[in-house]
Formats: sequence, structure tokens, C-alpha cells
Amino acid sequence: MSEPSSAGRRRGRGARERILAAATKLFTDQGINATGMEQLTSVAGVSKRTVYTHFEGKDGLVHAYLRQLEDGLLPAEDDDGDPREQLLTVFDRKPRETEDPIRGCPFLNAAVEVPDPEHPVHRLAAAYKTEFSRRLAGIARRAGARDPEHLGEQLALLYDGAVARATALNSDHPGASAREIAVLLVDAALAEPARQGSGGPPETGDRTGGRPR
Amino acid sequence: MSEPSSAGRRRGRGARERILAAATKLFTDQGINATGMEQLTSVAGVSKRTVYTHFEGKDGLVHAYLRQLEDGLLPAEDDDGDPREQLLTVFDRKPRETEDPIRGCPFLNAAVEVPDPEHPVHRLAAAYKTEFSRRLAGIARRAGARDPEHLGEQLALLYDGAVARATALNSDHPGASAREIAVLLVDAALAEPARQGSGGPPETGDRTGGRPR
Repeated sequence: MSEPSSAGRRRGRGARERILAAATKLFTDQGINATGMEQLTSVAGVSKRTVYTHFEGKDGLVHAYLRQLEDGLLPAEDDDGDPREQLLTVFDRKPRETEDPIRGCPFLNAAVEVPDPEHPVHRLAAAYKTEFSRRLAGIARRAGARDPEHLGEQLALLYDGAVARATALNSDHPGASAREIAVLLVDAALAEPARQGSGGPPETGDRTGGRPR
Repeated sequence: MSEPSSAGRRRGRGARERILAAATKLFTDQGINATGMEQLTSVAGVSKRTVYTHFEGKDGLVHAYLRQLEDGLLPAEDDDGDPREQLLTVFDRKPRETEDPIRGCPFLNAAVEVPDPEHPVHRLAAAYKTEFSRRLAGIARRAGARDPEHLGEQLALLYDGAVARATALNSDHPGASAREIAVLLVDAALAEPARQGSGGPPETGDRTGGRPR
């Protein structure tokens, strides 16, 4: 709230929060690279100096923008509830409910827009994707999956596929097809090993084509 | 490299081809939005005017850059060969062999960088993703899959998931995990309907955990 004029109607929200809200809206609507600092300060109603007081330049702002989204997007780590449902609920979620809807996966988008693997923003995106599958593996372990890391990786891949297709095809909720495959994989991983002698995994039963619960 | 001298060793390549090669390299390394026309003309060794002679501005160049990649990235439409193998070979491919390697899926990347669904570049990316699953569905039909459109959509989703994770995690060849799931889905879709009476799909057999061939 460093500037006089437009700040009035936004009173009550701190400058940092306003900058992050503006960044989230603009990065979502236009992309990171297409958003300049001029526009950002204008939408946030702050001076450039205020931005640099709160963030280490644009890279720092992109970093903070992603960090604030993390908790809402990662699979929850609480131990309550049915772990099988928790594995599948990932595919039910609409892009997170915020004031403005998130487009696709902001971390994947950031990785695309900042391709340099050594750049802090790209590294943050990579760490997020690793954490995503790690959390799924944790839930899979709690569910008693045979190879929880493998299942976590598989489900993360399905999730990213759904998100990527939604991004390109502009669909709101692409999770149905991914969820159907997830049900198959989860139930196969949780099934009792029926034919251990043969070295093969158990049959996946007849849930393949059924509507996921 | 914009000076006349360096143009000598490029003699024999047309200006259009040089511009496209430069665009491919820069868009791959830096992204579309991070690449300015100045740098592009400099790397291609042409004048801005030459770019505008061959392309309708940067949007036109991005469009042409994507179009030249299409044939090499889409599943082949020829009718030869084992269709089951053709469905799975999608997951064996390294990012296309060009002079410079392609990063992730250039069409997904373009959709991320140009978020406006009505923009010609975004529409081209969406059309590509639709064509990708349509071609897989065609091969699936030839293979005798029960619901070829559905299988095509599922495999396209797996492919996009592998590509998205490779993009964020900087891995060269992320297809193994996706291929494994693809084998499961393809074999389930191609299997004889063993239990039609129950309304369920056939068992997927014991290929789940085996190494894909």
C-alpha cells in the first residue's frame, strides 16, 4: 500500500498480497514471460519500488507466486480417510478454487516458460513434480500398495497427462479419463497377489470399464 | 551473427529454411515469448525485412515452426506393420532427431506460452493434440480394439503425461513408465471379450508387471 490513488478500494490487503494476487491473475491469463513489470504494478496498484521491497525482482515474484499455490495443489498429507479414495480424489479436483481459476498446472507452465534446468524457477517446478509423486507414493504405502513408489509415479504421470491435455485442448475438467486408468492401476496394486507362483501380478478384476466410484 | 560475412557458409540454404532453423533452436532453448525478433534475425543471419517477406510476423513464424514439426511428431498413418507395435512405439521415441533436439512437446509448450484459446497458435496446438489421439484411434481400430477412440484418447493422455513430466523433470526419455501402462491398456482393449455376460471387460492377464517387449 505504498501508493496513494488506487489503493483505497483495496485497503485491508497488504501490498505483498496484492502483488501476488495480480501476479497470479496475469501469469494465469497471459503467461509469465508475457507479463511485464509495468502491467503488474499497474494491476496491483503499487509502485515498482514496492514490488522490489517485497520480492527479489521478477524471478523472486514468480518463485513466491508458485510457492503460495503449492499447498493447495499437492495431494494432502493427512493420515485421515481412505487412502484409496485419497489417491483417486486427485483426479476429481477441478483446477484449484482461487479468486481466479488456475490454468493447467502452474508448475508445468513455469517449467515450460523457464526452460533452463538450473534456473531457480525451473528447479522449483521440478521439485514440485517430484514432491507430487512422493506424496502419492506415501498414500499408496498407507493403502498397502505393492510398489508404492511405482504407483505414485504412475498416478503422477496420469495427472500430468490430464493437465497437459486440458491445457492444450482448453477443457475444464480432463480428469475422467485419467481417473479411469488410475482406478485400474490402484486396484491392481492393492489386490492380493493371487498368482505369486507365476511371478505375474494379480488379475486386475473387472473394474476396468466400470464407472469409478 | 547478423553480419554479411557469416552468411557465406550458409549459402545453399534458403532464407526461409535458415529462419525456421533459428526459430526452432531459439524457441526450444528459450521458449517462444523469450525470443525476440532481433535475436532471431541475428541467429538466422537475415534482415528483419526478410523475415517479414517469408512469414506474417512472429505469429506466422511460430505457426510455420510448429507445422514443420508436425509430421515428425505425429504417429505415422501408414498401414504397414503390426498395429499393436505401432501403438506402443509412440512411447519409445526420443524427442525427435533434428539438428537440435526438441524439448518436450513443442505444441504443448506453445499452448502454455500462448494461453488465449482463440489465438491461431493455440488453436494449432489444440488441433495437433486432437490429431494425435485421432491417429492413435485409427491404429487402434486397425488393431481391432474394442473402443478405438477411447484407447486413442487414453494413449494420448499417457504420452502427454510422459512428455509433461520430462519437461519439468528434465529427463531425456520418460516413456518407460507410460509405455508400461500403455501395454496394459492396449492388451486389455485387444483381448477377446471373455466375460461379456457380466458386462465387464476381459481380464488383462498377467502382463501388468512384465517388461514391455
